[in-house]
Amino acid sequence: MMDPKAFRALSYGVYVVSTWDNGRPTGCTANCAAQVTAQPAVMMIGINRDNYTNRCIADCGHFAVSVLAEDTDPAVIGSFGFRSGKNTDKFADIPYDIRNALPIVKDSCAYIVCRVTQAIDTATHTLFLGEVIGAEMTNERRPMTYAYYHEVVKGRTAKNAPTYIAEVDG
Amino acid sequence: MMDPKAFRALSYGVYVVSTWDNGRPTGCTANCAAQVTAQPAVMMIGINRDNYTNRCIADCGHFAVSVLAEDTDPAVIGSFGFRSGKNTDKFADIPYDIRNALPIVKDSCAYIVCRVTQAIDTATHTLFLGEVIGAEMTNERRPMTYAYYHEVVKGRTAKNAPTYIAEVDG
Repeated sequence: MMDPKAFRALSYGVYVVSTWDNGRPTGCTANCAAQVTAQPAVMMIGINRDNYTNRCIADCGHFAVSVLAEDTDPAVIGSFGFRSGKNTDKFADIPYDIRNALPIVKDSCAYIVCRVTQAIDTATHTLFLGEVIGAEMTNERRPMTYAYYHEVVKGRTAKNAPTYIAEVDG
Repeated sequence: MMDPKAFRALSYGVYVVSTWDNGRPTGCTANCAAQVTAQPAVMMIGINRDNYTNRCIADCGHFAVSVLAEDTDPAVIGSFGFRSGKNTDKFADIPYDIRNALPIVKDSCAYIVCRVTQAIDTATHTLFLGEVIGAEMTNERRPMTYAYYHEVVKGRTAKNAPTYIAEVDG
């Protein structure tokens, strides 16, 4: 049995992964972000190689994960999720702070900043492992889950997401 | 700022990762499991090297991820989460099916079976990447999130989990 709908039973959050593109902030949405070790604290993110953010993270050597909240303005997902940062200033209308020298989406509930320690290539995505150099829960809002995003925010799945299922969504 | 509570804003599911130990089924709970590519379908799991299941996956070359549901009997988590499979038959009181030649926890809502294609060592955990060879949504129960587990099932975090925070939980 090989039913790709089973992948929908996996739980994720909704994140903006951000970095610098030669002094300009850029980023993309991601759902594949996880803490992989506690001591030392190491995060993993999976970013499609077709995403402009991928090469910017490789060049910068650092990335930040902003954790979106259930009530984060859907415009944040719209800004980061469905267009390329190559020709677009995705942060143009999105307020941000600088934390540990990285741009963080203000309209979020937590952030984690990492220094890339390893990049693992898979067929389509790069898995970046990063040592955590900064982290903060900025408020008490509830983190948005990917299920909440689909059920309540009624979001679409971006074509470059690892969870994109051509048979179902395309 | 380095506040480990920020890691709690990341969203995960609750899974049993299972495999064979010389013909005997064994496994452990996990929260770090994600689909990392869609074409081909590849999963990633993070398993502490101190977990007996880790060496069993390496030996067997295959693993299964059973997705626990919100109403999965907490005894499943108790059986797989807080003791070692080395000296214990964790499946003794847990009904299971065989799917794609791997043991699957019956009291779950979906399963994904993988053939290990890559094992990446980190400080404490092995990240196993696996090509998906079988997957099925077995019923319509709601997948349990890690937040639901903590808020409703009132679970503890196992010491070998990547999300274990000594300062908070220990």
